[in-house]
Amino acid sequence: MIHESIAEKLDIEKFSPTSNTFRIADLGCSVGPNTYIAMQNIIEAVEEKYKSKGLESQLPEFQVFFNDHVTSDFNTLFTFLPPERRYFATGVPGSFYGRLFPKSCIHIMHASYALQWLSKVPEEVADKDSAAWNKGRIYYSSAPVEVANAYAAQYAKDMDNFLNNRAKEIVAGGMLLLIMISNPDGIHRSQMGCGVMYDKVGSSLVDMAKEGLISEAQVDSFNLPVYTASPKEVICLVERNGCFGIERMMTTHPQLRNDDNVDEQICSMSMRAALEGLITEHFGSEIIDELFDRFHKEVAGFNLMDSRHKKGILLLLALKRK
Amino acid sequence: MIHESIAEKLDIEKFSPTSNTFRIADLGCSVGPNTYIAMQNIIEAVEEKYKSKGLESQLPEFQVFFNDHVTSDFNTLFTFLPPERRYFATGVPGSFYGRLFPKSCIHIMHASYALQWLSKVPEEVADKDSAAWNKGRIYYSSAPVEVANAYAAQYAKDMDNFLNNRAKEIVAGGMLLLIMISNPDGIHRSQMGCGVMYDKVGSSLVDMAKEGLISEAQVDSFNLPVYTASPKEVICLVERNGCFGIERMMTTHPQLRNDDNVDEQICSMSMRAALEGLITEHFGSEIIDELFDRFHKEVAGFNLMDSRHKKGILLLLALKRK
Repeated sequence: MIHESIAEKLDIEKFSPTSNTFRIADLGCSVGPNTYIAMQNIIEAVEEKYKSKGLESQLPEFQVFFNDHVTSDFNTLFTFLPPERRYFATGVPGSFYGRLFPKSCIHIMHASYALQWLSKVPEEVADKDSAAWNKGRIYYSSAPVEVANAYAAQYAKDMDNFLNNRAKEIVAGGMLLLIMISNPDGIHRSQMGCGVMYDKVGSSLVDMAKEGLISEAQVDSFNLPVYTASPKEVICLVERNGCFGIERMMTTHPQLRNDDNVDEQICSMSMRAALEGLITEHFGSEIIDELFDRFHKEVAGFNLMDSRHKKGILLLLALKRK
Repeated sequence: MIHESIAEKLDIEKFSPTSNTFRIADLGCSVGPNTYIAMQNIIEAVEEKYKSKGLESQLPEFQVFFNDHVTSDFNTLFTFLPPERRYFATGVPGSFYGRLFPKSCIHIMHASYALQWLSKVPEEVADKDSAAWNKGRIYYSSAPVEVANAYAAQYAKDMDNFLNNRAKEIVAGGMLLLIMISNPDGIHRSQMGCGVMYDKVGSSLVDMAKEGLISEAQVDSFNLPVYTASPKEVICLVERNGCFGIERMMTTHPQLRNDDNVDEQICSMSMRAALEGLITEHFGSEIIDELFDRFHKEVAGFNLMDSRHKKGILLLLALKRK
């Protein structure tokens, strides 16, 4: 989809002929190798586009900006940069919910598996006096509608912020390529596959609180800053924002392997990789091994292929700066 | 000097009016805080320049590129970025003897205490069969003229490379501001203050080899990739290169404190900070404590104010891209 979007929709003729630099950013890039591969793919697609337009002699130099939180490991990211890369590499520390770049300087931005992270947990869900207080849970999937609404509202606000900041930074005719974890339209939140997983981490924490290993108040004040929107929801937010046109949209169903043992292992490791930092920050590092041992046991008794729990989908969106 | 050079010599009117981003790079920035202070100074000077020209309404956004070797600690650099900074911060890993940026994109480059580092030790000085073999020493200051010539030739080659690459990256009218450790013109290499210090590290290594703590061959194959040129030498290289005009030049004599104990401590710590990485790479980390204990004792018996050993000077150069 990225190749096609660039081939068909990127307006390279519009870009300033005075600058022969093509700038690409990967937002929420983490430490590789996925980000190197994604950037390489985009560069190849842009080069093909120049060639197909007969502009081979005007092939630009590429500059790639790798962005992630300031706490991300940029040293490792830089150490493993592909030695044969054909671009100038730079690192940009900071949240993509704020400004990261000067005005109108990036031609293509890419964010993969990044926008499910909210800028923060919605305040109401940790507030005892709110109807949206999320007592005894860490996520919204099996929570009352007030909790789910608070999460959805935070997501909408974050997404608008994200799009407004990107609109300032992307040149006219430039593209924003998003790969997002999503839920099929029309699926109730309680049926989301990832929700089931987060709930199991939550119930492991609740069990540990019952056994006195952590306090109940600690569990009640912990919530995941994660939201997975449906394609309809995302499209509605992009249209309401108005800075970008939707050029292409695609959903795919990622295949789980048919070997349940592998799945358990992958599931448990992925969850730990994703959540360890957040959980350590709130509870301290001492509980991590115990927690994920418990989680692993819970997942072991759970059929990931169970049709009652819908698999998440991937939503691929190619947006163009109006 | 930086303020004055920018005020008097920077051609902001020449810069592309289509781009409202002003890009600054610090080459060999290390991990702060000096680099933050230097970048802040430059930004303030540029802002003043815009104001003094009545171009306050066109004040650009600033993007700062912090460059150092890929092994530098960018995580720490990013963690301690001043929170109140008025620029977009980016990190650029790589040697400044190669290309670091796309063509014509940086308005001001700055390198402070960086260019005394050669890209590599000149090959001849580690070659037993060469007249420039630097047996039993790690530096050129007290070495035969063949060794000194090999170092000077490497410096000339590196400097030319450096200037050629910067010439590609700096916009026409942009500036290259250099702060360099230098030696007063006309001083013989054997009288350079820093040479005396390096020689003492060398003689400590030779002593350790005599005692069998390291091998003689290891010492013979170790040389410091450091060269300090005189102002005349630098100016000659800049003029021969031809890409930059010399707008301003200044030398200063950094003051040593008059308290010898402090000096010993500072001298010993600075030397360890500068050389530990290189020495560890060649000899392993086990010898470091022993080596710098020995070095500290040698320095303790040495009068840093001794007039026979000339202090180094700082050379400040403001160059403009022709």
